[in-house]
Amino acid sequence: MRGKLITIEGCEGAGKSTQLALLRAFLSERGVDAVFTREPGGTSVSERIRGLILDAANREMTGRTELLLYAAARAQHIEELIEPALARGALVVCDRFSDSTLAYQGYARGMDLGLVRAADSMGTGGVLPDLTLFLDIEPKAAFLRKGGADSADRLENEGLAFHESVYRGYLEIARREPDRFVRVDAGPTEPERIFASILGVLKARGILL
Amino acid sequence: MRGKLITIEGCEGAGKSTQLALLRAFLSERGVDAVFTREPGGTSVSERIRGLILDAANREMTGRTELLLYAAARAQHIEELIEPALARGALVVCDRFSDSTLAYQGYARGMDLGLVRAADSMGTGGVLPDLTLFLDIEPKAAFLRKGGADSADRLENEGLAFHESVYRGYLEIARREPDRFVRVDAGPTEPERIFASILGVLKARGILL
Repeated sequence: MRGKLITIEGCEGAGKSTQLALLRAFLSERGVDAVFTREPGGTSVSERIRGLILDAANREMTGRTELLLYAAARAQHIEELIEPALARGALVVCDRFSDSTLAYQGYARGMDLGLVRAADSMGTGGVLPDLTLFLDIEPKAAFLRKGGADSADRLENEGLAFHESVYRGYLEIARREPDRFVRVDAGPTEPERIFASILGVLKARGILL
Repeated sequence: MRGKLITIEGCEGAGKSTQLALLRAFLSERGVDAVFTREPGGTSVSERIRGLILDAANREMTGRTELLLYAAARAQHIEELIEPALARGALVVCDRFSDSTLAYQGYARGMDLGLVRAADSMGTGGVLPDLTLFLDIEPKAAFLRKGGADSADRLENEGLAFHESVYRGYLEIARREPDRFVRVDAGPTEPERIFASILGVLKARGILL
C-alpha cells in the first residue's frame, strides 16, 4: 500500500521543529515506518540548492530565480527520496512544501500566482500532500516567542510586514483547500497541547490508529 | 534603440570559444558596445548555479532538477545582465542559450519537449535571440579536433552517442527555425575561414555594417 505524504507549514517561529520532534518520537516508539525530511533540502543535491537560496550573499537573486531554484530542489527531493519512500508504504513527514512556495513567493512577494503554481508543479511532477498541518499562530506572537530574527538567514531578515503577508497567504490557502490544509492552533505555550491537537487530526484522518 | 541578442550554439569542440574570441576582438577594434557572456552563468548567482550543474559529484541529479536549474540560472542572467544591456542598446553575445537546453535536455536526454520549452520560457520570461549562430560540425570530427573528453566535466563525459543526439537536435531546430537559427560551416581547420562566414551572416542580417 502506498504511503502518505504529510507536510507541516507555518510562519517562522510557529513551532514546527518542536512539533516535528514530538511526532518523530511518537512514531518511533510505535515502530511506524516514517521518513522525516525538509524543504528546501532532503537530499544532497537539494541541500546544496538550499544553500544557494538561503545564502545572504546572493542579494541580487531575483524572485523568478528563487522560484525556479525551489522547484529544482523539490524535483530532486520528490524523485530521489519522497516517491521511493511513498512507494514502499512509508509515512513521509516534510517540513515545508509547495504551500510555502505559494505563501512566500506568491502571496507575500506578490509573484504571479499562475507562474508560482506552474513552476511548483514542474518541481512536484504532480505529487500533492495527503494532508497539510498548518501551525496557526500570528507572526508577531511567533516572533516574540522565538526571541527575534536570525540575521544570517536571508529569509528571516525580512521584517514583520513580510511575515504577516505570508500568514495571510496561508489563511487564503486554508480557505481554498479546507480538506487538505488543516489549521492547528499553535497559540498555546505548552508544546504538548499543540501536539495533542496534531494527534487528533492524524487520528481523525485515519493516518494513525 | 534596443540592442540585439546573438547566441552561439554547437556541440562540444565545435570551436565556439575561438570564434567568440575573434568576434570580441573584431567588435572591440570597431568600438561596438558589446557584452560577451555565457550560459549557464554570466552573473554571480548564475555561475554558482552552473557550479552545481556541472559538478561531477552530483551524480544523483535528475533530468528534471537539471532542467529547472538551467531555467533558474537563465532567469537571473536575463534579468540582471542581458535585459539591462539590451535596454541600453548593446550587442549581447551569449555562448549557449535556450537551444542548448532544447538540444541537450530535450532531444538528447529525451525529456518531454513541451516540459523543456515550458521550463525554459519560465527562465527567459519570453526573451528570444534575434539571431543564433550554429557552428555546424559533426561531434566525431569536433572530438578528434579537440583531442578527447575532459573527465572533470560531467557533461563532456557522456560519450559520442550522446553528442550525436545533441547534434541531431540542433539540426531539428535548424529545420524548424531557419530564419533565426543559422548554420555556419565549422568544418574548416582555419578559424579565420569560419569567422569570415560569421561576419558574412552578421552583415547580411544588418547587425554589422
